[in-house]
Amino acid sequence: MATLSAQKKHKVTVVGSGNWGTTMAKLVAETVRENPTLFEETVQMWVYEEDVTISKDSRHYKGSDQPEKLSQIINTVHENVKYLPNITLPPNVVANTDLPSSCKDSTFLIFVLPHQFIARTCKQLEGKILPYARAICCTKGVDVSEKGIRLMSETIGMTLNIYCGALSGANIASEIAQEKYSETTVAYDPPPMDSRNPTPSGSPNASQVDLINPSKTTPGPRSAHLTPLPNEYPPLSHENVRKLFHRPYFHVRIVNDVAGVSLGGALKNIIALAAGFVDGLGWGDNAKAAVMRVGILEMVKFGKAFFGESSRTSTFTEESCGVADVVTSCMGGRNFRCAKMAIQRAQTIYEIEQSELNGQKLQGTSTAYEVNEFLKSEGMEEEFPLFTAVYNILEGNKKPENIPELIEPKYK
Amino acid sequence: MATLSAQKKHKVTVVGSGNWGTTMAKLVAETVRENPTLFEETVQMWVYEEDVTISKDSRHYKGSDQPEKLSQIINTVHENVKYLPNITLPPNVVANTDLPSSCKDSTFLIFVLPHQFIARTCKQLEGKILPYARAICCTKGVDVSEKGIRLMSETIGMTLNIYCGALSGANIASEIAQEKYSETTVAYDPPPMDSRNPTPSGSPNASQVDLINPSKTTPGPRSAHLTPLPNEYPPLSHENVRKLFHRPYFHVRIVNDVAGVSLGGALKNIIALAAGFVDGLGWGDNAKAAVMRVGILEMVKFGKAFFGESSRTSTFTEESCGVADVVTSCMGGRNFRCAKMAIQRAQTIYEIEQSELNGQKLQGTSTAYEVNEFLKSEGMEEEFPLFTAVYNILEGNKKPENIPELIEPKYK
Repeated sequence: MATLSAQKKHKVTVVGSGNWGTTMAKLVAETVRENPTLFEETVQMWVYEEDVTISKDSRHYKGSDQPEKLSQIINTVHENVKYLPNITLPPNVVANTDLPSSCKDSTFLIFVLPHQFIARTCKQLEGKILPYARAICCTKGVDVSEKGIRLMSETIGMTLNIYCGALSGANIASEIAQEKYSETTVAYDPPPMDSRNPTPSGSPNASQVDLINPSKTTPGPRSAHLTPLPNEYPPLSHENVRKLFHRPYFHVRIVNDVAGVSLGGALKNIIALAAGFVDGLGWGDNAKAAVMRVGILEMVKFGKAFFGESSRTSTFTEESCGVADVVTSCMGGRNFRCAKMAIQRAQTIYEIEQSELNGQKLQGTSTAYEVNEFLKSEGMEEEFPLFTAVYNILEGNKKPENIPELIEPKYK
Repeated sequence: MATLSAQKKHKVTVVGSGNWGTTMAKLVAETVRENPTLFEETVQMWVYEEDVTISKDSRHYKGSDQPEKLSQIINTVHENVKYLPNITLPPNVVANTDLPSSCKDSTFLIFVLPHQFIARTCKQLEGKILPYARAICCTKGVDVSEKGIRLMSETIGMTLNIYCGALSGANIASEIAQEKYSETTVAYDPPPMDSRNPTPSGSPNASQVDLINPSKTTPGPRSAHLTPLPNEYPPLSHENVRKLFHRPYFHVRIVNDVAGVSLGGALKNIIALAAGFVDGLGWGDNAKAAVMRVGILEMVKFGKAFFGESSRTSTFTEESCGVADVVTSCMGGRNFRCAKMAIQRAQTIYEIEQSELNGQKLQGTSTAYEVNEFLKSEGMEEEFPLFTAVYNILEGNKKPENIPELIEPKYK
């Protein structure tokens, strides 16, 4: 009903154009065309400009070795030849190298940037976006340190003073770009700012910022400070947000638990290392499934301990961002493969990072250290025996063979 | 405390001596030795007698091709050379070919028989066991037909008029026999028959027989008909039952949900077929993780629909018998492998059963048909889109490529 009376449509910008960003832009460009009453047809994609030399093997080779601008290639041949080659983008994806211009007048911002670029990119957008814009963060991971836990969505939301949810799941970008079937979880639960658009959960203060461990993080924008969406726009309800992401090959489930969805994407990398360790020992599928199960329950416990009851068990045990992402990561992800290789070759994970990843750090090792530092400062290492075991194995304090005794539940 | 005053010890019999039965006998023979105040040292194992010709490669070859009795080999060389070769059994495992004699005076019976032998074996034991014996069924699967669902533990409990729980998990027998780390779930929740030994859940009527779909199955023994354990024995509490199964390499979690634990072991085979189909199509790890996740939630729904609220969500989403067994089965189990092969070779699953299994039926295909027949009779096929999709693919009514649309949630 509200849709019929709306005079404006939502403009969508994808902030980021890597492998996953370009995949999201392709997907969203498909959904906006399917929902023309809700969304403007053009999807802006912010591109960090690069010079690209098109190889002679490419169907786009023009007989010259002169480098071309990535944004121009995207806008002319409709392909991100550098980060998502061989996938044709819909023509309504428009590459824009000017960050504020790409976000101008957009009511919906989709952040898909590498972790380390989120804060500075948001800084550049401060005061240059619609005050009532909403965002979804598709970058996995959280910032964990001795000082506390900060969600990516929180960094975005607080810097820009807008509501920001999260999207995470068993989502290998290249498979989704090829339209192979997968699922995802969108966490979206804005506080009530607008009488037309009540909080889906019915909980009046269920903003993501209220989920943060209050003793450990800075307060973020409260609902009172957020600007309501004007009535001219269709509501950004669960139903309409789902329409922005759902495709026949990309099934979306929407939940309210932003903290859980964000934690899942970070903590699963620690579990993948544990699974790699036991698989490297040749312990078989029972053992691998066991560490995955124990790991999922430590995620649940972590959410409850540091984000309270608003972090729901089911986010980890029933959603794509939890159990399914753990499964995918432990079947063949990079953390799993490198941990397995370390055991099989009797090398440290650092030696593997050197030889296999040119010294690049695995997400799992950084997260294991960060989480351990945080748990130590909270005096809670023993409550998370698997996360602590992975840290101690990385540190050389324990052996992978010790995992069963380290995670064995204590009974009187 | 109760243990100190107990004058008798529990005698344990393992009914069955195949691959899994012999593994359970080995494991329990280890635990009883560790808990000498609770259990008698000797563990009886009922062996269906066979003549075995020991090969020249065996370390037990005596220079003669004469067949020997399997039970004698087990009792002299402490190895089940036929069903669990190269694993030494503790000497306190005693093979016994006489079924009633093997169970005589036993207070704890562990059933580990092939599905199809359970009913007739119990018939042979009728009236020949202690009336206050308790049992655990380690055979996976349930009997599903148009008429209803019957748990294996129910068949045992009703035939022998004793309490029977269930054990199930991500438990590939050969890995456990080699003492590779794994976990399991034991469902054990006897009704209160004995004031000394209250029901752990605190629910007065939580016998497994009360969990059965009341409209579809015959009533089983009620708590009033079960004989309490005499005071001379240590109580068969959760704690003591856990001691009978827990090992450093075999971690046990105890729950009350017999129906859930039993259903998990059956329904996971349907999920493994679905995972094999999408993997055979080359759809990658996202898709495989997605069908696993959807399948686990259909298990939850199935439990609730036919066993009521006593079937708990967490049994499927958090325990080894649920999520972990699904993971193991979808990583490399027989159902997964054959379904994948069928797609890759463009053959029917029946052709694969012929060529790869000598015509033996996969557990998954039988269960998919039985469950579909039951769901049809209940008018509930549409409520379980993945289970129904697998049936329709097996029948040739649908293609594996249709899975995403068949399981896509319907929104208004």
